[in-house]
Amino acid sequence: MANNFKEESTKEINIIMQQSQSAFEAYQKTSAEQKALFIEAIADEIEALGDALLQKASEETNLPLPRLTGERARTTGQLRMFAGMLREGSWVEASIDTALPDRKPLPRPDLRKMLVPLGPVVVFGASNFPFAYSTAGGDTASALGAGCSVVVKAHPAHAETSEMVYQAIKKAIVSSNMPEHVFQHVHGTSFESGKALVQADDTAAVGFTGSTVGGLALLQYSSERKKPIPVFSEMGSINPVIFLPDTLDKNAADLAVQYAGSITLGVGQFCTNPGLMLAIEGEGLDNFYKLLGSGIEAIKPAKMLHAGIHSAYEKKSHAALEQEGITSVVKSATEAVDIEAQPTIALVSAETFLENHLLHEEVFGPYSLMVSCKDEQELIKVLKSVSGQLTTTVMGTDEDFAGHSNLLQLLPTIAGRVLFNGVPTGVEVCASMVHGGPFPATTDSRFTAVGVNSAKRWVRPVCYQNCPDALLPLALQQANPTNIWRLFDGEWKK
Amino acid sequence: MANNFKEESTKEINIIMQQSQSAFEAYQKTSAEQKALFIEAIADEIEALGDALLQKASEETNLPLPRLTGERARTTGQLRMFAGMLREGSWVEASIDTALPDRKPLPRPDLRKMLVPLGPVVVFGASNFPFAYSTAGGDTASALGAGCSVVVKAHPAHAETSEMVYQAIKKAIVSSNMPEHVFQHVHGTSFESGKALVQADDTAAVGFTGSTVGGLALLQYSSERKKPIPVFSEMGSINPVIFLPDTLDKNAADLAVQYAGSITLGVGQFCTNPGLMLAIEGEGLDNFYKLLGSGIEAIKPAKMLHAGIHSAYEKKSHAALEQEGITSVVKSATEAVDIEAQPTIALVSAETFLENHLLHEEVFGPYSLMVSCKDEQELIKVLKSVSGQLTTTVMGTDEDFAGHSNLLQLLPTIAGRVLFNGVPTGVEVCASMVHGGPFPATTDSRFTAVGVNSAKRWVRPVCYQNCPDALLPLALQQANPTNIWRLFDGEWKK
Repeated sequence: MANNFKEESTKEINIIMQQSQSAFEAYQKTSAEQKALFIEAIADEIEALGDALLQKASEETNLPLPRLTGERARTTGQLRMFAGMLREGSWVEASIDTALPDRKPLPRPDLRKMLVPLGPVVVFGASNFPFAYSTAGGDTASALGAGCSVVVKAHPAHAETSEMVYQAIKKAIVSSNMPEHVFQHVHGTSFESGKALVQADDTAAVGFTGSTVGGLALLQYSSERKKPIPVFSEMGSINPVIFLPDTLDKNAADLAVQYAGSITLGVGQFCTNPGLMLAIEGEGLDNFYKLLGSGIEAIKPAKMLHAGIHSAYEKKSHAALEQEGITSVVKSATEAVDIEAQPTIALVSAETFLENHLLHEEVFGPYSLMVSCKDEQELIKVLKSVSGQLTTTVMGTDEDFAGHSNLLQLLPTIAGRVLFNGVPTGVEVCASMVHGGPFPATTDSRFTAVGVNSAKRWVRPVCYQNCPDALLPLALQQANPTNIWRLFDGEWKK
Repeated sequence: MANNFKEESTKEINIIMQQSQSAFEAYQKTSAEQKALFIEAIADEIEALGDALLQKASEETNLPLPRLTGERARTTGQLRMFAGMLREGSWVEASIDTALPDRKPLPRPDLRKMLVPLGPVVVFGASNFPFAYSTAGGDTASALGAGCSVVVKAHPAHAETSEMVYQAIKKAIVSSNMPEHVFQHVHGTSFESGKALVQADDTAAVGFTGSTVGGLALLQYSSERKKPIPVFSEMGSINPVIFLPDTLDKNAADLAVQYAGSITLGVGQFCTNPGLMLAIEGEGLDNFYKLLGSGIEAIKPAKMLHAGIHSAYEKKSHAALEQEGITSVVKSATEAVDIEAQPTIALVSAETFLENHLLHEEVFGPYSLMVSCKDEQELIKVLKSVSGQLTTTVMGTDEDFAGHSNLLQLLPTIAGRVLFNGVPTGVEVCASMVHGGPFPATTDSRFTAVGVNSAKRWVRPVCYQNCPDALLPLALQQANPTNIWRLFDGEWKK
């Protein structure tokens, strides 16, 4: 994807990362309140760009304005959440074990622990969220919130949108009196610049949202470093959804409406898109599949993000549908033109699915494969055969759940989030959210990319032993001057 | 290091890891109380081995019985701490965001998050702690506590001690009615078996304590895996100690006693051994160095753990002492024989130290290098030149601290633990401990190897969305039946 922006050389990128390190050191000296004001200023400046930003993003991504309006609100909301996190302060996970001078055989020293930022974070934005997972998206917001400096590599598919957001951040840097290089932005379409960003000496961590191929390439680059760094890549997921028999019997029509919507939401271009459906064969499934098919037929094709994603959708969906054993294909009744994607569902037996690994692959777009299983045992076998996922969902009545406890126990072992009677699209931004999961959904299942806890990717604990109170960071001082939640001799206290 | 135990083939190791995966699945179905009883039974069985275990360990490691008695107590104490962690239950970091059905524009679903175990953990024990960082050491205890199965590769330097501990764990498995393969033990002295353990499909995570070369080799093996896994290697550290001027003037004699002891404790074979000392030149430093030298002269050489560590000590200390610019060397007045290590300190200028990277390398044993700096600025330069550390220590009076705030701010940026007026040897086992630090102290500074939080290396979060209360794990049920600390709509509550 070519664009009009300059490509930085490896040498230039190394300088950018050095500047990021210096800015990190200066940023660490600013207060939580100053950081919060800065992050809020970013949100304000993004809003100040008004409709021009939405127009540009729509031009570059083909996403409709209402969706982009919502995504912008999520992005600014996310930024303000991290400002709130900084003001509230408890995110540092302060833990205090006071001295036991009389303990035998040895006294215990005074030990106090809190989280501190890692250093410059390199962020690779996603193509499918030009705001929320991009220049000022979740990775950037969480890293700035954690106290790290950030260098974003703009996604070439929406380079001009990214540039506009970058200019907004620059304004916020100036108005908040922040170090000039606390946030930097590079364009570039080559693998070289991505490699240089990951391999620069000063890079302390990497965040990525995108394809499996891209995420694994960054992991490979990082494994060539002398000094290892954490790389969090959020990659593909087919988000299995299980429809249990009783709910299929009782709620087929509602389920069909719900899932025709979820499969095609945003032209299927969500990492939590339900790409795999599982059910036990029978009349209930036949009826549901028919109703879902009618729903899909009625949904009009829409333009995808860019030509590359469209041709990948064409290629991958055709490859899947051509496999032996696909017993039904239902498409939108309207023919897709240009770079539109035609909503599609297909049906296959569990036996065929288990034998053919190609059918396990993500088809990024408005596509979902229904796997018909003989019984619960076969359904469990299918579920065990798919790799790590961002989400897994089960649709069922109380009667269904009572009769499938083995299946329910399996769900949390394969995904970061388990949903009951809902759709996986839609990711709430809060403390209990997990947007992550076992490989290949992410490269490190111990972290989440969404919610306040996403900041944990960019921090490490530091322990102070017998430090004089006045020399401690505010979060660890005896009097708790910032009034945060702390684990004080084993009790959470303010 | 050859021994009498069988070397497992790669094929056999893959079977062991498959067994570990099956055992993991069964172990997950046991209650927290059952796991706690099992872990306590391990501690009991280790104690039941009595003096025979201490004797064997002393034969294999040359460590004296009092030290081994203390280390055994720490090991069983650590196991019981994880049993306590399981019973208390709050370690799962339960977080609950309740539904907001009336929120506009979209309702918020009910979201509940907790930590769950990753799967089979492979542990490589250390040579310098035959109990506390070995077969039933911190990595094993934290992994079993987190709900993971464990496979330990015994350190060949104390294979028979490890085997005895393994037999104790086997007894505990039987008496606690645990899955047979929840803990397994392999010997083997080849790189091949280590590689096979790291690269087995079923391995979910790796813990290692030992040399930089060993830790990096495991990281390299893991980077060749198709499915990335977390590798936590705790490796070398020279643990800089800064002696500030006022305390040198006032407390030189006490400091010399304290540090002659810390440098030679356990024949200097601790990862937190103070291998580097920094001070500003002047009479205070001259006087302290002389007193410390007298202390070192008076300490008798003692046998190291094994011939390999001894020859590395000889080689590395000689190489360092032969460097141009070493202006003084003080050794124990008693000549070392056999595989004894001769306690040694040396003096060098900051200028020389900064120019010669060989002097930055860890000399594992009773050795420490004093770097004499012209002023605070040069001292800061020296500190910035050393890489990531487990600990960094500052010795000073209130007057010292008031006059060196720039220096104090630097300390937490290079280490996992910052000590004031103490010695880095001695690692308290508690919630606020951080035994970790920036690379090369560890391969991932976001974690600790000691304390309850060491279990966080082996867990990942799972979120339940709109899950019926009765189907939730106990930790997330509305009524909080296990009475644990939970972050409930932003407030820590029981």
